[in-house]
Amino acid sequence: MVNERLKQQVDFLLEIDKQKQIFRQNYLADGSRTENDAEHSWHMAVMAILLSEYSGDIDLLKVIKMALIHDLVEIYAGDTYCYGNSIPEEKHLKEELAAENLFGMLPNDQMQEFKQLWEEFEESLTPESRFAAGLDRFQPLLLNHASKGKSWIAHRVTKEKVAERNLVVKENYPEIWNYIEEIINDSAEKGYLI
Amino acid sequence: MVNERLKQQVDFLLEIDKQKQIFRQNYLADGSRTENDAEHSWHMAVMAILLSEYSGDIDLLKVIKMALIHDLVEIYAGDTYCYGNSIPEEKHLKEELAAENLFGMLPNDQMQEFKQLWEEFEESLTPESRFAAGLDRFQPLLLNHASKGKSWIAHRVTKEKVAERNLVVKENYPEIWNYIEEIINDSAEKGYLI
Repeated sequence: MVNERLKQQVDFLLEIDKQKQIFRQNYLADGSRTENDAEHSWHMAVMAILLSEYSGDIDLLKVIKMALIHDLVEIYAGDTYCYGNSIPEEKHLKEELAAENLFGMLPNDQMQEFKQLWEEFEESLTPESRFAAGLDRFQPLLLNHASKGKSWIAHRVTKEKVAERNLVVKENYPEIWNYIEEIINDSAEKGYLI
Repeated sequence: MVNERLKQQVDFLLEIDKQKQIFRQNYLADGSRTENDAEHSWHMAVMAILLSEYSGDIDLLKVIKMALIHDLVEIYAGDTYCYGNSIPEEKHLKEELAAENLFGMLPNDQMQEFKQLWEEFEESLTPESRFAAGLDRFQPLLLNHASKGKSWIAHRVTKEKVAERNLVVKENYPEIWNYIEEIINDSAEKGYLI
């Protein structure tokens, strides 16, 4: 006799396999192809482990959970390019609906947990969600720089836009910001950024 | 002035981007292509969050860390197919060397942490590493079943081999084992397994 709760959990786990087919705008470090959301989330979670020392006192498990699930809504809502022209309110409404549908597949207690984690991440008001937001900026920045600005150049992204996008890091994590500033300057010098 | 420790951490983070290009034998749920190690590790980590209730009392953060890093050595040592003819001692030696080289890129304290996590996972003697090992079996099993045995059929895998591979689940996590047994029987009925 199969446990009904486990069946529900497995159905969700199979549904989120689709995260591996949601492609982002940024390339892998070697520029060979764009990255998908599952790879991005994995990378962000490993970054959380290694870089948590720059975040002050936080609940690392919570940051990692956020990193792992923060983009799941894109399975239903699609990826929105951060340097594109999407309307934030529209994006948020679409993602709210996606969260209802996707997390709604889980047993009630876990649906609540995932919804709360995702909402906390979106609001970016707690130390954990702020740090996760910082990593969500830093991870593609590293790949964009390593892949010689391939995606930035294609979208004619400016130095100012990237700095603005990384404001959450500048305001909260000075060591990481110093690193980002060097990367932005180097990218501008090399023509990866306008 | 860039922090030298952070530079070392970032160099490692860029090196492990290669995990996204190490492809496994199993397919994604829809059978469209094989899965890579970064995707597998991400999926396993989300499974750890959702299924930890079946594991008894464990340190979930440790399980997730293991899930996220357990296959990093394959960046240098390559993927070894679990139903193939590789010699376990050879595989282990290659992976030991890979761990030295890869984790050796990290600052000393983090090198120690990652090496210990990986060794604990390999030995599979603690509650956390046993549960991680169970998830490492269950995750591809779900995908192999969902993709109609595409990889099992190609490699002529038998029902007995899959049951044997999932022994760690049978011996430790009865609810998950019940689920696996149903999947194995269903797969045999449908001709996904010999």
